[in-house]
Amino acid sequence: MDGETDTASHLSQVTVAANSKKSGKGRMIALRRYLPIADWGRSYDRGAFSNDLVAAVIVTIMLIPQSLAYALLAGLPPEAGLYASIAPILLYAVFGTSRALAVGPVAVVSLMTAAALGQIAEQGTMGYAAAALTLAFLSGAMLLAMGLFRLGFVANFLSHPVIAGFITASGILIAASQLKHILGVAAEGHTLPIMLGSLFEHLGETNPITLVIGIAATAFLFWVRKGLKPMLRNMGVGPKAADFVTKAGPVAAVFVTTFAVWALGLEERGVRIVGEVPQSLPPLTLPPMSLDLLEALVLPAFLISIIGFVESISVAQTLAAKKRQRIDPNQELIGLGAANLGAAFTGGYPVTGGFARSVVNFDAGAETPAAGAFTAVGLAIAAVALTPLVYYLPQATLAATIIVAVLSLVDFSILKRAWIYSKSDFAAVLATILLTLVAGVEVGVSAGVGLSILLHLYRTSRPHIAEVGRVPGTEHFRNIHRHKVETDPRVLTLRVDESLYFANARFLEDFLHNRIARDPQIKHVILQCTAVNDVDLSALESLEEINRRLAEMGVTLHLSEVKGPVMDRLQKVHFLQDLTGKVFLTQFEAVKAITRPA
Amino acid sequence: MDGETDTASHLSQVTVAANSKKSGKGRMIALRRYLPIADWGRSYDRGAFSNDLVAAVIVTIMLIPQSLAYALLAGLPPEAGLYASIAPILLYAVFGTSRALAVGPVAVVSLMTAAALGQIAEQGTMGYAAAALTLAFLSGAMLLAMGLFRLGFVANFLSHPVIAGFITASGILIAASQLKHILGVAAEGHTLPIMLGSLFEHLGETNPITLVIGIAATAFLFWVRKGLKPMLRNMGVGPKAADFVTKAGPVAAVFVTTFAVWALGLEERGVRIVGEVPQSLPPLTLPPMSLDLLEALVLPAFLISIIGFVESISVAQTLAAKKRQRIDPNQELIGLGAANLGAAFTGGYPVTGGFARSVVNFDAGAETPAAGAFTAVGLAIAAVALTPLVYYLPQATLAATIIVAVLSLVDFSILKRAWIYSKSDFAAVLATILLTLVAGVEVGVSAGVGLSILLHLYRTSRPHIAEVGRVPGTEHFRNIHRHKVETDPRVLTLRVDESLYFANARFLEDFLHNRIARDPQIKHVILQCTAVNDVDLSALESLEEINRRLAEMGVTLHLSEVKGPVMDRLQKVHFLQDLTGKVFLTQFEAVKAITRPA
Repeated sequence: MDGETDTASHLSQVTVAANSKKSGKGRMIALRRYLPIADWGRSYDRGAFSNDLVAAVIVTIMLIPQSLAYALLAGLPPEAGLYASIAPILLYAVFGTSRALAVGPVAVVSLMTAAALGQIAEQGTMGYAAAALTLAFLSGAMLLAMGLFRLGFVANFLSHPVIAGFITASGILIAASQLKHILGVAAEGHTLPIMLGSLFEHLGETNPITLVIGIAATAFLFWVRKGLKPMLRNMGVGPKAADFVTKAGPVAAVFVTTFAVWALGLEERGVRIVGEVPQSLPPLTLPPMSLDLLEALVLPAFLISIIGFVESISVAQTLAAKKRQRIDPNQELIGLGAANLGAAFTGGYPVTGGFARSVVNFDAGAETPAAGAFTAVGLAIAAVALTPLVYYLPQATLAATIIVAVLSLVDFSILKRAWIYSKSDFAAVLATILLTLVAGVEVGVSAGVGLSILLHLYRTSRPHIAEVGRVPGTEHFRNIHRHKVETDPRVLTLRVDESLYFANARFLEDFLHNRIARDPQIKHVILQCTAVNDVDLSALESLEEINRRLAEMGVTLHLSEVKGPVMDRLQKVHFLQDLTGKVFLTQFEAVKAITRPA
Repeated sequence: MDGETDTASHLSQVTVAANSKKSGKGRMIALRRYLPIADWGRSYDRGAFSNDLVAAVIVTIMLIPQSLAYALLAGLPPEAGLYASIAPILLYAVFGTSRALAVGPVAVVSLMTAAALGQIAEQGTMGYAAAALTLAFLSGAMLLAMGLFRLGFVANFLSHPVIAGFITASGILIAASQLKHILGVAAEGHTLPIMLGSLFEHLGETNPITLVIGIAATAFLFWVRKGLKPMLRNMGVGPKAADFVTKAGPVAAVFVTTFAVWALGLEERGVRIVGEVPQSLPPLTLPPMSLDLLEALVLPAFLISIIGFVESISVAQTLAAKKRQRIDPNQELIGLGAANLGAAFTGGYPVTGGFARSVVNFDAGAETPAAGAFTAVGLAIAAVALTPLVYYLPQATLAATIIVAVLSLVDFSILKRAWIYSKSDFAAVLATILLTLVAGVEVGVSAGVGLSILLHLYRTSRPHIAEVGRVPGTEHFRNIHRHKVETDPRVLTLRVDESLYFANARFLEDFLHNRIARDPQIKHVILQCTAVNDVDLSALESLEEINRRLAEMGVTLHLSEVKGPVMDRLQKVHFLQDLTGKVFLTQFEAVKAITRPA
């Protein structure tokens, strides 16, 4: 055991990190730390430039319909989706550490935005769009603060199964929320029962032409996703080209349905269209800051920040790993914070690093965040020049692109996996999924986090305690219930397989108390501390209490194999002096010393 | 490592416990389990009877003024204190497992009762006393439910330092709340700033005679507590007799001040007295059950239950240890639950096992819960026959007994101790003390619990990770920063000193990712899992992700010294098949196999 070295070396690492801020080239390092662009920008060359440009063109084509669609999902005017992709991408390019991450509106965050704003204002009102700015501002400020105070670890409390369950349930909610556009009816609600109930109520008002467009677009997009690529490959098209054609599928759907509406005058027959979108660069906007609004949005903004950060960082890390690049989670928070503040002041809404767009960017050969900057330019051109083209674009087509995109998020295999691997993880996933569906995204994700923390605490609050004895002829001690071991009726040795802390301190007290009360022969208790990484103050007081109570029963308490950092702490207090027995380096020495004939 | 046996043996223990309900003498065991009286009752004899009777007389004398005083503290009519001591003691005698625990009103729970009811109704109104019944009912129902569902572990989340801080702050609050009775003024508030502010406002209305009585009684009781016993012992009085006289101090104060008020007619000069107390056995009462009331009281009732349970069980265990007796925490919950339900239906208020009264009971020689039953009879006689005697008892005297009793609870040494031992425990205590004083008991204890859980999660979310190498000539592997060890530049071995779970899964991912990105020589990573007691689903997915990312970097991942239960779980999923490297029984074997020349 090199336990005694652990605290010191851990501290020394921390010190090293802290010093790097002030050392020799301190300012340059600090600059590079908070401005990663200063790092990759210096070595930028023509090769990287042309790769980045190609990637940007591909991503731009993909993003135009996607941005409009996610704005629709968030309940915002379509241009908000474009605006939310421009300034945020540029700001992330300056402050972010991932070379390939593409920042902008994403499905889950758009859904959460709709859920948050639905409590504040009616969709389509000025107040609604303004509140979206405030939400982006709050989210940006929180991300930035977490980054500056290096609080990125907060995201760790979202367990993988909870995230998986949440994403699956969100996918279902999103798909359900788009059905009204496919049917061409007005329906409402942010939870599944209310959405479905409202849809059912309005079913009679279904617009048949909208329904035809919606179903055709959905079927086409499913086919593009599943059947087109294999077909093209069979026809001898190269993999890259086949991939590109597949990615352009939504654009084709947009073109065809827009043309159909325009040519056949379908908007006069009740097909809802995108309509007028202002031809403009992103406007400068000021998020409203009334105290009531801030108070109402602070919790949603926090949840959006955390969920967005988790989604973004896992994409960034997956892509960085492919090229052995580093991602700094706290700097990522700063990058995402800046991106969201950018969205708040340029007519956008909360954004994060999206999975699909980032993968496309990476696969298209993006080498640096400059690719993102070029994408922003492409989208800015689209916002200025192309918006009249989407006037006749039916909302049903956008809904179809959303439905096809999010159904790939829905994956119930996590339930089976969790069931097989760990029942407590299963409980957390199931609760997350069900509550997200029936009580909304905020309740769902909060309950998932709360439950997984409680279940973790519950597990560690009832640690496994093994009664051990010596394997004959060796110095090894093993569980008496599983191995043929030698024990002495006067000596009880317990090995606790968990750090001792407040949640299990009393458990050990009870366990020992009951064990000893049952067996009056016992004169010595040895606690073998191999697996005890920490003893907090509650556990220390429990040990003191155990020591005192055992003394009153005439039983001596010994410890063996205490780790260095634990020993360091115990030496700060009186416990070792008060201990009725001794602390032994090894369990073997302990038993030898205690059972030695007098 | 005999890890593989651990889950199984743990399960087998659980099975044994579960089976005992159904085995041979099943019904008898079940009866004894839920009715401990069936156990000790059968061997009750004349010796135990006379010991119990003596203890009961002493405790009864002590409890009469104490019960009146605590009722005053809770803001209830004095008889409520007596009633709360009668049925609850009897019910605990039937259902509780402690032989010496004395159940009834205690200081901290009385304070919490006052804080909870203060939000519902005015002190002294009918609604206030009725709400106290509802509070006792809710608390009893919760304790009973926790006992039946074996949820006693919930109390473990109150860490020792948080309890210590809470008790100290409560002591200060209680003492402050009694100052108004010493001054003879009307003041209000349930937090220190409001209490002191209100007192200061009414300072001009101080009743001088009340003040004289209050100060004299307080000084006398302090002297009895600190000076009387040594004096008696010096005068040659035996230790038992000296002890008894000391315990009777409050009774003397009650007698003298009551006589003074009666003889000098002080109640006509503004000295507040206890006044008329009905001469009656505990009445049958029905706690009001309106939904509003239940909703308002459910959280306070939960906190009262938990705090009461923690106080009670620690007293019970301390006393049981002295005689090697067993306490069953879940049965204790049932006992306390029954006691509180008893209080709810007989005009009382929430009760628990008190420290002072239990120690007196134990020291006086109580052998079985029958001592409690006799005490109940004594108090019932007092309620019927003695209440007219306390008509002239000044409230200031009762306040003095409370102040002197609770000041012994105030102990700031926990702050120093926590500061020395663990800064995170210190933060939790300090927050508990400050918030209890300035924001009230409910906020204080909740914040303490929340903070200690968060700090624990934070600690385990950043586990110590040591990079280890082989100590030359041995099979031992130690921290490379602390020992001269042999390493191979192609092989990185990390030892994580914590179970892997969602809160630290990403930490390990980041750590490894950054470590490998820095060092392109590395071709093999070994995770030495000696201290990993658990791998939850999030950590499993992190390991899979690490495996996948390392593979993309051309690095092989191996595991060594995986514990049995962890291995069992890993075998349920595909991870071990997907692992690019191998699982080695020991770290030594791993390094030997990997670095073996080809």
